[in-house]
Amino acid sequence: MKLSNRITTLNGGGSNGWEIFEKARDMIAAGEPVTMLTIGEHDIGTSREILEAMHQAALGGHTGYAAIPGTPALRETVAKRVEARTGVPTTSKNVLIVPGGQSGLFASHFAAVNPGDRALHIDPYYATYPGTLRAVGAEPVAVPARAENGFQPTYEDIAAKAQGATSLLINSPNNPTGAVYSPETLAAISKACQDFDLWLISDEVYETQVWDGEHISPRSLPGMEERTIVVNSLSKSHAMTGSRIGWIVAPEAVISELTELVTNTNYGVTGFVQDAAQFALNQGDSLEKAVAAPFLRRRGIVQNLVENQNVAQLVPAQGAMYVMLDVRATGLSGKDFANGLLDEELIAVMPGESFGQAAAGHLRIALTVDDDRLEDAIVRLLAYAKARV
Amino acid sequence: MKLSNRITTLNGGGSNGWEIFEKARDMIAAGEPVTMLTIGEHDIGTSREILEAMHQAALGGHTGYAAIPGTPALRETVAKRVEARTGVPTTSKNVLIVPGGQSGLFASHFAAVNPGDRALHIDPYYATYPGTLRAVGAEPVAVPARAENGFQPTYEDIAAKAQGATSLLINSPNNPTGAVYSPETLAAISKACQDFDLWLISDEVYETQVWDGEHISPRSLPGMEERTIVVNSLSKSHAMTGSRIGWIVAPEAVISELTELVTNTNYGVTGFVQDAAQFALNQGDSLEKAVAAPFLRRRGIVQNLVENQNVAQLVPAQGAMYVMLDVRATGLSGKDFANGLLDEELIAVMPGESFGQAAAGHLRIALTVDDDRLEDAIVRLLAYAKARV
Repeated sequence: MKLSNRITTLNGGGSNGWEIFEKARDMIAAGEPVTMLTIGEHDIGTSREILEAMHQAALGGHTGYAAIPGTPALRETVAKRVEARTGVPTTSKNVLIVPGGQSGLFASHFAAVNPGDRALHIDPYYATYPGTLRAVGAEPVAVPARAENGFQPTYEDIAAKAQGATSLLINSPNNPTGAVYSPETLAAISKACQDFDLWLISDEVYETQVWDGEHISPRSLPGMEERTIVVNSLSKSHAMTGSRIGWIVAPEAVISELTELVTNTNYGVTGFVQDAAQFALNQGDSLEKAVAAPFLRRRGIVQNLVENQNVAQLVPAQGAMYVMLDVRATGLSGKDFANGLLDEELIAVMPGESFGQAAAGHLRIALTVDDDRLEDAIVRLLAYAKARV
Repeated sequence: MKLSNRITTLNGGGSNGWEIFEKARDMIAAGEPVTMLTIGEHDIGTSREILEAMHQAALGGHTGYAAIPGTPALRETVAKRVEARTGVPTTSKNVLIVPGGQSGLFASHFAAVNPGDRALHIDPYYATYPGTLRAVGAEPVAVPARAENGFQPTYEDIAAKAQGATSLLINSPNNPTGAVYSPETLAAISKACQDFDLWLISDEVYETQVWDGEHISPRSLPGMEERTIVVNSLSKSHAMTGSRIGWIVAPEAVISELTELVTNTNYGVTGFVQDAAQFALNQGDSLEKAVAAPFLRRRGIVQNLVENQNVAQLVPAQGAMYVMLDVRATGLSGKDFANGLLDEELIAVMPGESFGQAAAGHLRIALTVDDDRLEDAIVRLLAYAKARV
């Protein structure tokens, strides 16, 4: 039986970019002591307090179907949080609860673009972006954010691809580059969206992990509220990756239509997980800062080590749970470097090429192992780089 | 900003069919003592044992990203269950864990049909079916299962719509009619799928609620394994509606492609919920029978009451957590009857028309309140019907 064309072409005919991760995982399964610096998974689990709140909600009877767009209480909690952090008036009618940021990205694009539309995304990009755009039938079009610009996209780079496009997907703080978009970059993005009448889909899942600069949600910029769909989640901010819970903030009409979509595509989100999310958000800044703190500390470890050599360059490391190293001075591609490093040093990092051509010759390093192990891995990585110059 | 055409047309321009439910819900919120016999939600919650298993899994650290297609252990558990119940050799490579049956229906159709394809479904149908088919860009085409045939579809009814179609969606035991498809019906469906080269998508979420006859999965029929995608869930069988967990069973190539799809549309299912599902399935028949027992008992209550009059007819009441009453003898539409019954008797049932034209002049009654209250409601419903003849 023949499968649909669209499902067999979701990966665009190429690889899914996770070969090094998969190879490292297999090596670990075979007993090899690989240091895993590949995926964005905290080295802590979800806190016991959150899990207890979840369990109490379940025992208390919240085990049936929850309201499709999310529980009124969680929608209200998210609305208040967003309004407080961005200054944009926001009510629960602007909020849809979704089973994780990935489903939020899919649903947002489903609402914004028609099949066949050109949908822009910034390159380097999180690995699922092109597949997500193809899943809604759009043609993914990469807009380079160039290394020489600190991976901040420019108006000109967007404008060069925007004619006839319907949407632009951005992610700041950025995975994989660690860039936090500056006010100037966000102004350029805002102008491009208005000049070319684009929906802006803003993936803000790393908003609580900013080390330099400040997170600004583009929804708060003049003229942007009506054309911005924000996707967020508790995965990275609250170490709740496995709970699969996040939200979309958008104009009321978008949320209303998205409610119809999720009725037909997932029928809502687990009620007791929503209650746990509400509990987590109500803990305020302290919990989020505690979850983020190790990544800031580990960024410092990498910064100190990188300062003592001149082969690999750290760029820009302003936020998120990764750092990106420019290893072009070695003459190796990111992929060849990462493969060699895994084979010879048993250290697994992601090649920049897995996140698009704009990150070629770079490595993405997840700061997700304890400090000593990270330091040891970076020392050996830098020695590996030096030996290749 | 303009939303995509497809999201604004998901409901086909009509109502979503839930007006009576919504009206009754609002009346309850306003303090009126409405007896709610509308939606398919157990009057019990998820069992404490299942919730404890979930909590222990979470406390034990299973709070990170789970494997995208499902945990190996749960996939294996589902595969063994399906093989034992159907006789069809099934491995974990035939199983994808999904966040509920609804997402399974969406993903299955995404895999089987291309945008613009004709996708068949049986009428009467669960309310989301047409929207789900539209969400994947297909044209939903209703195949009537006629009241005079006990709501069993025939070869001729399918064949009349099948030319050029790509898929057929069935649901046995059936919501809303309570029909359990007979071996003859399933043979006719199988022949039609093979004659017209259709994918068969088989929604089997009520498989544990069969009162007359036997549940036969069409995947077990000759020539059907390669063209059948089965969707199932723990919602109805284990009173886990809110946990949002189910599975797809299909040929390996389908599961492999669907894994790419879910990577881009939801990024997998909560690990500790999967562990709870595994625990629940490993309880075997006893738990499922305990969850199903009240519906069988309450069907008996309705049968006894209906036998003592000759206005409303019970058809066919072979399975699932609903019964359907034919009230055409009153001369009222199902919708007018249901509206009058709600206004005058404060009893909320679903009009058959909400589930398609083939159920016009019928009522769907969810057996989801305690026995005494159900009996009282049916007595008054039958009196209401009699007064209108």
